Amino acid sequence: MSFTGFKSADCGFSLDVSGMSLPAAAVAALEKRLPAAHAGMVAIEAGEIKNPDEGRQVTHFSDRLSYLESDVYAAVEAFAETVRRDESIHNVIINGIGGSALGPQLLQFAVNGPYWNELGTDTRKGYPRLYFVDNTDTAGLADAKAVCALANTLVVSISKSGGTQETKNNMIALEQAYAAAGLTFADHAVAITMAGSQLDQYARANHWRDIFPMAESIGGRTSETNIVGHVPAALAGIHFAEFVEGAKAMDAMTRVENPAANPAYQLAACWYIAGAGKGDRAMVVVPYSDRLVLLGKYLQQLVMESLGKELDLDGHVVHQGLTVYGNKGGTDAHAYIQQLNDGRDDFFVTFIEPLKDAEHIVIGDGLTMGDYLHGFKEGLASALRAKGRQVIDITIDAVTPRTLGMLIALYERAVAFYAELIHINAFHQPGVQAYKLASKGVNDISAKLRGWIAGGAGEFSAAAAAEAAGLGDSTREVAGLLAKFAANARDFEGHTVKRAFRDGDWVYQIG
Amino acid sequence: MSFTGFKSADCGFSLDVSGMSLPAAAVAALEKRLPAAHAGMVAIEAGEIKNPDEGRQVTHFSDRLSYLESDVYAAVEAFAETVRRDESIHNVIINGIGGSALGPQLLQFAVNGPYWNELGTDTRKGYPRLYFVDNTDTAGLADAKAVCALANTLVVSISKSGGTQETKNNMIALEQAYAAAGLTFADHAVAITMAGSQLDQYARANHWRDIFPMAESIGGRTSETNIVGHVPAALAGIHFAEFVEGAKAMDAMTRVENPAANPAYQLAACWYIAGAGKGDRAMVVVPYSDRLVLLGKYLQQLVMESLGKELDLDGHVVHQGLTVYGNKGGTDAHAYIQQLNDGRDDFFVTFIEPLKDAEHIVIGDGLTMGDYLHGFKEGLASALRAKGRQVIDITIDAVTPRTLGMLIALYERAVAFYAELIHINAFHQPGVQAYKLASKGVNDISAKLRGWIAGGAGEFSAAAAAEAAGLGDSTREVAGLLAKFAANARDFEGHTVKRAFRDGDWVYQIG
Repeated sequence: MSFTGFKSADCGFSLDVSGMSLPAAAVAALEKRLPAAHAGMVAIEAGEIKNPDEGRQVTHFSDRLSYLESDVYAAVEAFAETVRRDESIHNVIINGIGGSALGPQLLQFAVNGPYWNELGTDTRKGYPRLYFVDNTDTAGLADAKAVCALANTLVVSISKSGGTQETKNNMIALEQAYAAAGLTFADHAVAITMAGSQLDQYARANHWRDIFPMAESIGGRTSETNIVGHVPAALAGIHFAEFVEGAKAMDAMTRVENPAANPAYQLAACWYIAGAGKGDRAMVVVPYSDRLVLLGKYLQQLVMESLGKELDLDGHVVHQGLTVYGNKGGTDAHAYIQQLNDGRDDFFVTFIEPLKDAEHIVIGDGLTMGDYLHGFKEGLASALRAKGRQVIDITIDAVTPRTLGMLIALYERAVAFYAELIHINAFHQPGVQAYKLASKGVNDISAKLRGWIAGGAGEFSAAAAAEAAGLGDSTREVAGLLAKFAANARDFEGHTVKRAFRDGDWVYQIG
Repeated sequence: MSFTGFKSADCGFSLDVSGMSLPAAAVAALEKRLPAAHAGMVAIEAGEIKNPDEGRQVTHFSDRLSYLESDVYAAVEAFAETVRRDESIHNVIINGIGGSALGPQLLQFAVNGPYWNELGTDTRKGYPRLYFVDNTDTAGLADAKAVCALANTLVVSISKSGGTQETKNNMIALEQAYAAAGLTFADHAVAITMAGSQLDQYARANHWRDIFPMAESIGGRTSETNIVGHVPAALAGIHFAEFVEGAKAMDAMTRVENPAANPAYQLAACWYIAGAGKGDRAMVVVPYSDRLVLLGKYLQQLVMESLGKELDLDGHVVHQGLTVYGNKGGTDAHAYIQQLNDGRDDFFVTFIEPLKDAEHIVIGDGLTMGDYLHGFKEGLASALRAKGRQVIDITIDAVTPRTLGMLIALYERAVAFYAELIHINAFHQPGVQAYKLASKGVNDISAKLRGWIAGGAGEFSAAAAAEAAGLGDSTREVAGLLAKFAANARDFEGHTVKRAFRDGDWVYQIG
């Protein structure tokens, strides 16, 4: 497995791994495992069940080969054009979380910039403003409602299963808000979901404006080149076909077995060797581009949710993972990069530099503003290399839909290949299920506690209240719930919870 | 050093460390070092030179004791009121990086939300829109210029030394833009800088609209409770006095020696024990609040720039650090938290939960949207604890200027105390200096290369060009510069650089 980086004429893409420490023995050891890992990659695109825990194929690489020719693609483009021409629609709320939010946010911010919603309608060519509601926080929803007149707003809810509680909550809350405003939610509601899902059934029964289908075999965090990415992008006038073509071009470059000609395999090999196959070094993602500030967050999900696993494919406990963080350069040089330069040597940096400047601004001595940004990147790279810190350098011509497609496909492929190397399932998320169950347990405690409050009265410590409510094993949870109820002046059948501070702790007054 | 958490009636602040693994022996060992570390903290506020490398006092704790009574405070408040009443000012561009950007961004986003600039003038009570330019990326500047009519915009440049190149570049670029628009930049320009600095001199010589003084002894990353935080906050109608009062209240709580009564000392002790005094576990910051999504980024700077150091105070090589990352919960549960649940056990989580919901929205089964968010937090905490993963839990009543002041002061104190424990200077950033020097080196190479291009012609590989330009030792830098010049169609005295892809690599055509 010999490799020294990769260059392509396509969008000036280049990968430079010369700043990584790649001992010949480590590379040679990895080389022996290449055929098996490559066979695993071939199996993914051949349609084998590569997500065994969920019994699913993994089709995000193969589905995009035909997506642009699909009826769904055409339907989404037509939908976006209808919305654009509809002068009554000014805003779209994208309601989705995790894989249904980060990709659309990344693409919107990168292509249309941070102030899309503040541009005039003409500058937006009639496309609506875009708002992302990606949590179950009433503050986030209230903020969106404060700037979106509901009568002029579409709500696009994205959930494969339809059971994602956060997205469901926002949908319910918005349905209530429309009803309170005397508006018919269904006329403003659009769903992207799997055929037959809970959300699909609900949307059909209630005659929602539009419903778009989502494939079961595409996971949230790898859904950006398919319909999940398409609908938000098309609504903001982003040339989605270019984005998919970029991904397909990178797929073509990263489908080859020879690592010398495959940048995704090189990337994964660097991660593997740097972190001894266990993620011992964190991946710090530093795009030298304001427009790419969300890339680190996007890759954080893609990499950590895919690779952070307890068991390998044989059921052995491995506690794998690869930590990702980072915002943008040169800004980050004035933040955490002090630690990278001088502190713990437990990371490798990935620089991602678009070469094209937005404007030609001469600062002095013949240097432009863009020259300075480039100089800061090269300077930081030199400083880190001089200290023996490890650096990967990726370059692209510019931030465009095509280069974003290339980057996303590159990282999707590298993640899948790395998963082959460490022999894990990269396509499920059992830890998220565990956490959902535990959250349900808290809500069950809440129900019992609320029932007790509705019939109770008196002053209690949290522990005494837990005991009295028959929740003696859950004092911590009860304390949290009582505090939450008190802060929100909740009323349970005429009974409320107040709290007072006595001798260093809270007491709760029920009545 | 015995401690079990901390609660205060003030804003419902509570710190729960019961989810941390704190072996009695480790706590006892730390206890022995408490008197010396506490003495170090006392020395900071007594005005000793606690930033010895730069020969400076460290006054961010003590200066805020009197800030609200200072002439500067009154002048800033008056300035903000003048701007508010000036109907010709619609926008303010805050031009600053690192410590001059992250704090103001955090406060603005937390108090006024993500869509402040989209609210009507009346809703904003006449206060201007706020834009942050925090890099030397022409794209970021162009984005701001696209929505800010310069005639109606103030530019506030924040730089202690005045020598911060990124901020200087934006200032120069905006000065050019104002001139090109036939406007007098000085009438729109405001500086926050140290008396006598390069920026101060320039602003005075050019009769800028306003100049506010910055103390030498307050570092960028600890400047939020002083004038650097004040000007942007006041311009957006944020009650800055409440914010400072919150910080002062937390200072009062964290000035005591007894760790049982000092949440900052407890926090630092948890970090120390969790990471074996070397930062072996990363700090994952998860505020359950959309409005606090920037807190992780703010703390990333505060902690990593302060603690990521090569040398201790005696000059020994220690390569210290404490990695920080995180965005917001419950959203992050659909991203990297899969890894925290199941993967590498190399972190501790800090949850930060504001109890008060923005709205009362009933979802079903008596559960509100806020109940769900709380349930997700408690559920994740339970799932992590069940797996032996470590958790710190912080609660506040609500996101307000006061609670933000408390949180920032808490972490400032914990960082300074942790630095005492590991015996480093938390208040300088030598790694940033090293990187600035290296960047200057790249710009020197650029100058030489540009001179060569201006007089040259022919087709070259990067290596051949470097050789021909007398830069044979800098092939990597030359390759980067040539690519940058080509992508931006630069012209050096009539000579340009084009690039073509041949046999897997670029050749450069000079002429």
